[in-house]
Amino acid sequence: MIVLRSVIGSQLRRERLDQGRTLREVSSQARVSLGYLSEVERGQKEASSELLAAICGALDVPLSQVLRSVSSEVATHEAEVRPKTKPALSVA
Amino acid sequence: MIVLRSVIGSQLRRERLDQGRTLREVSSQARVSLGYLSEVERGQKEASSELLAAICGALDVPLSQVLRSVSSEVATHEAEVRPKTKPALSVA
Repeated sequence: MIVLRSVIGSQLRRERLDQGRTLREVSSQARVSLGYLSEVERGQKEASSELLAAICGALDVPLSQVLRSVSSEVATHEAEVRPKTKPALSVA
Repeated sequence: MIVLRSVIGSQLRRERLDQGRTLREVSSQARVSLGYLSEVERGQKEASSELLAAICGALDVPLSQVLRSVSSEVATHEAEVRPKTKPALSVA
């Protein structure tokens, strides 16, 4: 099963690396601990709404843009697994 | 500031009411407590990734669809507040 926090974490990590920034820089600007940001990026911790907003702010990327990317990735995953999880009804 | 959990909660509540279902029905099907679902819907509690998936499953709505709606609502809010939070630089 796809886990939302992992998709969000990957997206945040991708955005940070695209900007060539370190965990230290972004965590400092977002006022979260480096360890916390690292755990969020690896999908090991749920980011609260407030801290997710702070991280997006530090990355200067709108929260809506992150959510849109996450939604697309989740949709791709749903399309892949749907045939397995919802098989056609068998004829009695 | 817009709080993500409130937008998610409102979206879940809207979906449930559109289906004419009660908190009791949906919480039972999602295997979460009625009080928990109620708090999530009112934006008073962060839904974990697993429980958000369970609630979406009980509502039979793809997580990606909820996220897309949430993203749109957040984007609308961002467009409204941007002029206030990011004023043009004044000329020295």
